This record gives sequence, structure tokens and C-alpha cells, in this order.
Amino acid sequence: MNIGDELLIGQVVNTNASWMADLLAAEGIAVERIVAVADRDEAIRQELERSMAGAALVLVTGGLGPTRDDITKATLCRIFNTSLVFNPEAYAMIEAFFASRGLRVSELNRMQAELPQGCLPLPNPQGTAPGMWFEKEGCILVAMPGVPFEMQGIMEHEVVPRLRERMDGQLILQRTILTHGMGESFLAQRLAHWEDTLPGDLGLAYLPSPGQVRLRLTARGTDRSALQAALDEAVHGLQARISELIFGYDRDTMEGVVGALLKHRGQTLCTAESCTGGYLAHRITSVPGSSAWYLGSIIAYANEVKIKQLNVDPLLISTHGAVSEEVVCAMAQGARLRLGTDWALAVSGIAGPDGGSADKPTGTTWIALDGPHGTLAQRFLFGNRRDRNIHMAAMSAMNMMRKQLKGSATK
Amino acid sequence: MNIGDELLIGQVVNTNASWMADLLAAEGIAVERIVAVADRDEAIRQELERSMAGAALVLVTGGLGPTRDDITKATLCRIFNTSLVFNPEAYAMIEAFFASRGLRVSELNRMQAELPQGCLPLPNPQGTAPGMWFEKEGCILVAMPGVPFEMQGIMEHEVVPRLRERMDGQLILQRTILTHGMGESFLAQRLAHWEDTLPGDLGLAYLPSPGQVRLRLTARGTDRSALQAALDEAVHGLQARISELIFGYDRDTMEGVVGALLKHRGQTLCTAESCTGGYLAHRITSVPGSSAWYLGSIIAYANEVKIKQLNVDPLLISTHGAVSEEVVCAMAQGARLRLGTDWALAVSGIAGPDGGSADKPTGTTWIALDGPHGTLAQRFLFGNRRDRNIHMAAMSAMNMMRKQLKGSATK
Repeated sequence: MNIGDELLIGQVVNTNASWMADLLAAEGIAVERIVAVADRDEAIRQELERSMAGAALVLVTGGLGPTRDDITKATLCRIFNTSLVFNPEAYAMIEAFFASRGLRVSELNRMQAELPQGCLPLPNPQGTAPGMWFEKEGCILVAMPGVPFEMQGIMEHEVVPRLRERMDGQLILQRTILTHGMGESFLAQRLAHWEDTLPGDLGLAYLPSPGQVRLRLTARGTDRSALQAALDEAVHGLQARISELIFGYDRDTMEGVVGALLKHRGQTLCTAESCTGGYLAHRITSVPGSSAWYLGSIIAYANEVKIKQLNVDPLLISTHGAVSEEVVCAMAQGARLRLGTDWALAVSGIAGPDGGSADKPTGTTWIALDGPHGTLAQRFLFGNRRDRNIHMAAMSAMNMMRKQLKGSATK
Repeated sequence: MNIGDELLIGQVVNTNASWMADLLAAEGIAVERIVAVADRDEAIRQELERSMAGAALVLVTGGLGPTRDDITKATLCRIFNTSLVFNPEAYAMIEAFFASRGLRVSELNRMQAELPQGCLPLPNPQGTAPGMWFEKEGCILVAMPGVPFEMQGIMEHEVVPRLRERMDGQLILQRTILTHGMGESFLAQRLAHWEDTLPGDLGLAYLPSPGQVRLRLTARGTDRSALQAALDEAVHGLQARISELIFGYDRDTMEGVVGALLKHRGQTLCTAESCTGGYLAHRITSVPGSSAWYLGSIIAYANEVKIKQLNVDPLLISTHGAVSEEVVCAMAQGARLRLGTDWALAVSGIAGPDGGSADKPTGTTWIALDGPHGTLAQRFLFGNRRDRNIHMAAMSAMNMMRKQLKGSATK
């Protein structure tokens, strides 16, 4: 359960819930329900009491900050019929946190050492509010701060190890197959007959997001090796049917897959971006260690930058327009020459909302890949939403690089 | 309520919930609870029946897709004690969607025109599954697809206009003040005395996220002009106390504010990025129309790109290191000269996880701004998380530009 008015008025996206659910799924713990409620005593209490009645584990985030709108602790006292007391162990944690940053503990932060009597404080090395572990009538309740990396540290180092000690035999095994290049409905039609042959304890879910559809296989039961064998067979089935669409598995990302391929070959990449405006470079460099295969980019938002920094012939721009096969190929060639890499990806498109025409509607995007064997280019027509077009263009560009490195240049 | 196993195993972040909550807050509709449940009939039914008993409006997303794991419609039939019937109005909507893309309706998609009897279908111009509007015993229930932009289109064009017709006199007015440069606890201490003077019908919440703390003021009541006056006075109070930290209001973004200032002055900006790897350029170009003030960037991830594309003297790099005041100033100057802009921002830092040293720990970041009056540089020490460091560096760089354009160069 995630507490905070900010969740209910939409100012904050509930990434804590998805992060926690992901971690719990990997531990084989099924999440029954995710609830977000306001910073109001009654709403919090009602939800917590309902959750504790039906679940063996209730995780709560938020409302533990030092400011007045944070009321979770008072509500927990009411639920456990206890009161706040100064907890020396928790105070030592807070003091250590400030000392490591060369700061003294403020009066507001000192109050964070006042915890409901009877709870176990959990160290929070990333922040000032300790986690709290409660047990009552067979249910475990853990309250943590809402700041994502503080909650994550407490979950990984304190909560999960304690939960592992208490697990029974129920298993959930999952495998996710990542695809790019075909929409959900068409993929589902293509796989319908095969889906009919899956055993009953195996579920298949389609998880579409811009630029990819993830296929998640879930096996439930108690016999680990039987579940694993069933999962493996289903994965092989998918590989046989849609191999050209699969770019990775589970936690893979397109940028991670492309980076690993480049690293393995000892080759380097640079980019030249117009409409993606740095997003492609950002995705590629979001992989730690990417400086081993990625040298840099020329973001040529303005035409004069394309001309001066990428050697694009101004005549090409005036004849064909900046969004054209000719210009995008020249951008890739110019970037590869200037930055001295093995490969160069270039993107030029109309991200929108303005700039489209009957001839080249918003979403029209040219992508080129220049490399040791010449230049490839492909035209895409995405849609009319700027952020989505930028995202789709970056995914498609990276996929073009991936297919080339895989030795398969089929669409 | 948001339906989908993917939410409960953490594969998808529930951005629908926050988007909807944000829209409803702007309409003065208070969200009581956000719940995510699995694609299971019993779980969906239990939550829907509980929600309908306590709320005047229940919005449901997800589980309307054409694939087999989508079961929401069958559950809605059970709740409303009805059955699926072919809805010609809905089929016309689906047919129009495919026709606009030059496609025929597949058998799977034809099934999406089968809706629970008695519901009102709502057009979904972005996708194949129509929305559904139900009313029962004073409660409105709207079911929509889970694909974000499909849901958003239905909410904006169909749901909100219908809800506006039915509102009573209760008002919620809000104002959010966006700050950068001070952490939540220190800000709260600085504002504590002032906070005591706020009237009772006015609430203040601190909403921290990397690189900013939002201060949200909420006024509740029935007299719009009195609420507005109280809000305005509180905003003036904050402006008098922390004006140097305020960069915007409500829906403003740092990149939007910086873009508007540049546009107003008729000036241009370029960037030179090392550790941010294109993220700064991406943020700046995420603003529609940014080509009016932003010309491009040299992403100099490798030192040879700093030397060749940004004219950085190799001696500066070997003497001071790539993460130094000398190199970041040279990067800014080189970019401004090469791209011919009024201003150039440069960033060089150690994003991590590797690359830190005792002298320059991970998170060390130099940011420089070169302009008509010379070069400013500032050192920042963020933390040890790569994505957060990249984010903080981009925010701090844009804020440096903002302060310069505002004519205030105080920290």
C-alpha cells in the first residue's frame, strides 16, 4: 500500500508499487492488491485493517517524512494500539546517516526516531526515516518511506532476507520474451493456434508498450523442475514462431542488447540525431559502461548544424527536405566520418505536433545506419504524439543496429 | 481501478492511475482510492463491488484487449447481471478505426464490439476497444482500455465532458510551487513558522522528487473566490520567503521555463554533454517548438570527441582530467563557437557506478555556461546512482541557464 495525496492527485507516478511488485514476483510472492490512499488517518486505517485481515504480508510506503503532512506513524499506533516512544536504536541510525554527510541531526529529524512501541526498526542507509517491522496475528506489516531509493534499500537489505526465511513451497516461475516490430493484435492472431497447445498451468500475457510487446509466460505449482521444463518448452515454441521479432528476454533492454553485441565485437557506435533530440544517445548511454562502445553524438536539431557538423550537402536539404532518405544517409555518413566509429545511426523525422504535411505527415521518420559495408536506410510512419514518436524512433534505430550485428538484415 | 497482472508483478508502472488522478484533481474531483488488481474474475469483482458501494464514480482501465488474458468484460456482465451482445454502434467505431489505417477488421477485433447489454459505448479514436459507461444505483462506472493514450483520449473527449454536467458545489483549488536547490527537510524547517499561520482550510504538502521539491497548496470549500484569495495569499507568502528556489508553478517544467525565457529574448542555446549522454538535449527538445531556441548538441562521451568536435585542448584533459572546471569550460566555449549560439551549457561528471575516486567520487559533476559575458562554472556532488545523477545534472544545468536569463546569478 502506498500512502500519499500526491499519488491520488496524479503528481507522482506510483513507481514504488511496480518496483516492489517486481521484486516480490521474483521471490515467488504473489501480490493480491496494490492500493494508493490519501494521507488521511481514516483512509489509511481502513485500508490497512482490510489488507491485514486478508494477507500474510502488507507493505506500506510513504507518510514517514519529517513534515506535518506525514501521518502514517500515528495511524500505525492506533492500529497496533500502542504509542510513539523514542527508539535509541533508530536514533543511532539517523545520527549515522547525518554524520556520513557531515551534518548534525535537526530537531525535525530527531522526531523520526520516535517509533510505535514494539516495532522493529529497519536501517535506512539512504535516508533519515527508518523502516518499521510489525507482526500481529500471523500478518507481517512493514512500513517504509516513500522515497524510492530509500524504500528500495530497505526492501533489498532488510525485508527480502527476512521474508525468505519464512517461505513455504508455492512457486511462481516466469519468463518474459521481448518483441519489437508487430502490434499486440497481429501477434496474438499469429500465436493463437500455438497458444491453444499450452498446458493449463502455464499462462501467456501480452504486455504492449510503445515500441515493444512483451510476452510473459507464467507457470504456477510446487515442482520447480517440471515448471522450468514447461517454461523452457514454451520459450522454444515462441522462438520457432516469431524469432525475427524477439530482441531479448526478462530484464533485457534494447540498449543493453545492442551494447552487449557491440562490446562482444569490439566495435564502436556514434549517432546523429535530429527529431529524437538526444533521446537515442540517452538510451544508449543509460547502460553503465557504455563508453566502451559509444563515442558520442551530434544532435543536429538545426539544419546549419547538419551542414557544418555533419557535412550534409545543403543542396540535399533544399532538394529533398531534412526528413528524407538522402539527408539521413548523409547524416549517418558524416557522423561516422567525424567521430571515427565503426557504425553510425542517424534519425531525422517529424516528431510533431507541428511540421507535418500531406506529403510527410507528422510521425514520418527516416533512420539510417552507416557501417563498414555501406549505408542502409528505412522509412517509418509512427503517429501524432511527440513523446511516443521520439521513443519509437529510438527503439527502431537501435533495433536496426541490433539486426545488423546479428547478421540478419530482414525487416 | 487498474486491472492487469502486469501491474502486480511490476512489469508496468501504473502511469494511468496518476494521469487520471491528475485530470480529476483539475476538475475538482477527489480520488479516494487507487487500486490495482490481477486479471482474475473474483479479484476484479470484489474490488468493483466495494468501490461502487462507496464512491459516486469508479473508473476502470485494462483487460479490454482482444487477447484471452483480458477478462474485464465478462466480469462486468456478472456485476451488472447482464450478458455480452453485439453492439452495432461499437462495431462502427472499430471499423472506422481500421479503415483510417487502411486495414480490415480481424475476427479478434470484431469480438471487441461485443459489449455488456445496457452500457453506453464511448468512441476510442486511438484504438480498437471502445470505452463503456454504466450507471447503477447512483454510481457511474466507466471501463476503458489500459493502453495509456487510448484511455487518455476517452477520458478527455468522452468522460470528463459527461462528468462536468453532473458536478455539485464542492470545490478543491490547488496551486503547486516548483522549487529546485534545497532538500525537503531543510525547506520544511525554513517554512515551519510560516506554515503555522496558514488558515485551517488550506493544506501544504511537500512532494520531493530528484532535483525538485514541489509545494502543493490545497484549499477546500464551496466559495470559489474566497478559496482563490486564500491560495493567492499563500503563494505570495512563499514567494517572499523562498523566491530564489522557485522555478515554476503547476504544470511548468524546468525545460519549458528555460525555453520560454530563451524564446522571449530571441536567443539560442546549444549543449555539450559528457556524463548526461544526451539526456539534457532530450529534456530541452521534449518541449514542442524547441527548434526555435535550441540548435543542437555535441555529445562528447569519448575524450577524442571532446578534442576534435569541441576544440578542447588535450593538455587540459591530461592535466586536470575530463571532469574538471577547465575542461567543462572549454567544452561550453567549444560548443558555442562551433554551433554559433548565444549560450552553451556543458556537463562533465562521473555518473557511475564506476569511474569514481577518492579525489572525485561518483556523482562529482562540473557544469559550465558560456555566453556573451563569459563563462560560469559550478561543481556539484550528487550521489551514487547513475540515473539519478544524470537527472540531477540536467536539472542543475537548466537551472543555471534559467537563473542567468532571470538576471540572478546567486546560487
